[in-house]
Amino acid sequence: MGFFTKDIKTLDDLFVHSLRDIYYAEQQIAKNLPDMVAKASDPSLKSGFETHLAETKNQIARLEQVFKMHGVEARGVDCPAIDGILEEASEVAGEVDDKSVLDAALIAAAQAVEHYEIARYGTLVAWAKMLGRTDCASVLQQNLDEEKATDTKLTNMALRQVNQRAA
Amino acid sequence: MGFFTKDIKTLDDLFVHSLRDIYYAEQQIAKNLPDMVAKASDPSLKSGFETHLAETKNQIARLEQVFKMHGVEARGVDCPAIDGILEEASEVAGEVDDKSVLDAALIAAAQAVEHYEIARYGTLVAWAKMLGRTDCASVLQQNLDEEKATDTKLTNMALRQVNQRAA
Repeated sequence: MGFFTKDIKTLDDLFVHSLRDIYYAEQQIAKNLPDMVAKASDPSLKSGFETHLAETKNQIARLEQVFKMHGVEARGVDCPAIDGILEEASEVAGEVDDKSVLDAALIAAAQAVEHYEIARYGTLVAWAKMLGRTDCASVLQQNLDEEKATDTKLTNMALRQVNQRAA
Repeated sequence: MGFFTKDIKTLDDLFVHSLRDIYYAEQQIAKNLPDMVAKASDPSLKSGFETHLAETKNQIARLEQVFKMHGVEARGVDCPAIDGILEEASEVAGEVDDKSVLDAALIAAAQAVEHYEIARYGTLVAWAKMLGRTDCASVLQQNLDEEKATDTKLTNMALRQVNQRAA
């Protein structure tokens, strides 16, 4: 982004900027998930994070497909939002010793990440449709659906087992 | 938070820490909303942000009620997540000149904020219930319901008018 010029002139520019934002975000999430796998104690939470790491890698590949379909370079841009969300997750986890309480904290952190992605993919799908890119919209919708499903799984794990053990 | 001790020992500690996180976040949101009101061009978006500023102040008051009910000091803790989300919102808005494209960017930014709050309040309601604080849970649920309603209103504004003008 330029310091003296305003680089986003059209909805198409905004769409591409946001694609690059979530592309960077997904890469940071993929880097952080192995640490969450290592910290989780509950076996279903641990395997849930492992599954989500595989999904995240596939979502990155889908984003690369969207960049290609839209004829723009696949690259990330700084995303202070995901950096902040992941920094906070790491800080809070570092304050928790008890394994069951840590599992509850990890689920909360993961749901903050999921909701960031749900917000961004929801916007991207709407903008892609508005730009007449229903082809891009349908690929982005697959990532959106996966993030929503992951959020629901995390809620169910918290309510059925993790929160009870932490309390 | 201590540098040498792990300060979060129980689910109750984690609940109080997260209350303080969202308390800080709501205050930062209240500080940022007047700028979003100023930047918005679409009259319904502008008035939507004004309404949400009034709601946010009321949500802060509800959080103070929850601190009191739970017998802990009402204070914020650093929340790198909301700082990052708001920093990104401001950076992106600063790159956009066209008023209609800016409105679309403002809605996207506001929905990232709403989703952060939905994630946090969803977690807080679940933890309050697990801790036997159904009184706190019902107050927090009111904030959660308002954030979800705001997110839906923003989606409707984007789909019905703002995105079309931006395209």
